[in-house]
Amino acid sequence: MVNYPNKKKINNSHLTTTNSASKRGMSLEKDINDSNQFYLNADQAVIYKKPTPIQVVRVDYPARRAAKIVEAYYQTPSTTDYNGIYKGKYLDFEAKETASKTAFTFRNIHPHQIQHLQRVIRHGGIGFFIIRFKAYNETFLIHADIVCDAYLTQKRQSLSYQFIKDNSILIQEGFAPRLKYLQAVDELFFMED
Amino acid sequence: MVNYPNKKKINNSHLTTTNSASKRGMSLEKDINDSNQFYLNADQAVIYKKPTPIQVVRVDYPARRAAKIVEAYYQTPSTTDYNGIYKGKYLDFEAKETASKTAFTFRNIHPHQIQHLQRVIRHGGIGFFIIRFKAYNETFLIHADIVCDAYLTQKRQSLSYQFIKDNSILIQEGFAPRLKYLQAVDELFFMED
Repeated sequence: MVNYPNKKKINNSHLTTTNSASKRGMSLEKDINDSNQFYLNADQAVIYKKPTPIQVVRVDYPARRAAKIVEAYYQTPSTTDYNGIYKGKYLDFEAKETASKTAFTFRNIHPHQIQHLQRVIRHGGIGFFIIRFKAYNETFLIHADIVCDAYLTQKRQSLSYQFIKDNSILIQEGFAPRLKYLQAVDELFFMED
Repeated sequence: MVNYPNKKKINNSHLTTTNSASKRGMSLEKDINDSNQFYLNADQAVIYKKPTPIQVVRVDYPARRAAKIVEAYYQTPSTTDYNGIYKGKYLDFEAKETASKTAFTFRNIHPHQIQHLQRVIRHGGIGFFIIRFKAYNETFLIHADIVCDAYLTQKRQSLSYQFIKDNSILIQEGFAPRLKYLQAVDELFFMED
């Protein structure tokens, strides 16, 4: 590898640090989607990202061509980003990444997502958050109960990096799957089995 | 109600017959969404329709206004329309209505939907189809296994109305929920409990 002398001068807090992992240049969403595809192909789980809800206002129908949406708006999702089935269990989670080095702010979470995950758990499902600290290229899996409790007591507006580190499982990374997050699910939810 | 003398002349096979049920003017999708909202409010189940996947090509960002999508296209869904959790079980289904009086054609089903429902069942989930015959205003719940088997053996291109009547459960209708489809799920999947 060529070692560019100017490399150190690049400093942008929105970018991840220039370690080998960040060079892959993937977003958390892409990592999770790739991992879900791996788990699907390996027949280990059936988990998908839900499509982004879009309100369609106007559609053109050009002759002999596919319908073309010409006016539409993004809607706020009413639930979480991902759900599916794993080891016979309903599984549901939200994934977020942050550029902060110190905390994950609750501004990134909608109240209805908290309510949704509480419902999922009450009905016997598995609920969690995947939170990536881009600055460290570390991705954690944390039980939804912990996040919901902290969110609802409103004592704080965020979870500190240290708190997340102490109360969640660091997701192991690799080539395939990129994020071995079902290992973390096993550890957190299936240990008694 | 005014009885328009010309009423009988209206004849369009795409419309349902003018019985009291069809006067409600609701589509199957709306009926299911309303029922899901009822079940959610009653804390009986957490089931949602997945948003329609749309490929966004171009977005405008007018000053001080919400992002406006100005070019986008509908994509083929990779799975089914609905999923969620009920009595601790992962539940997944596709809903279709037909204007035919004699059969439900497989043209309405994508191969990947069949594959998806087979996976769901293999992983311990509950999978089914909801099929409405608009001509009779009858809505049936049928085990995904039955539809998948018929689909894959390819002996026929459709399921006859009579076959569906004999091999599924007629969903009871009411005011709230509109479609009592979880009763049919109980009957089909939870009878041994």
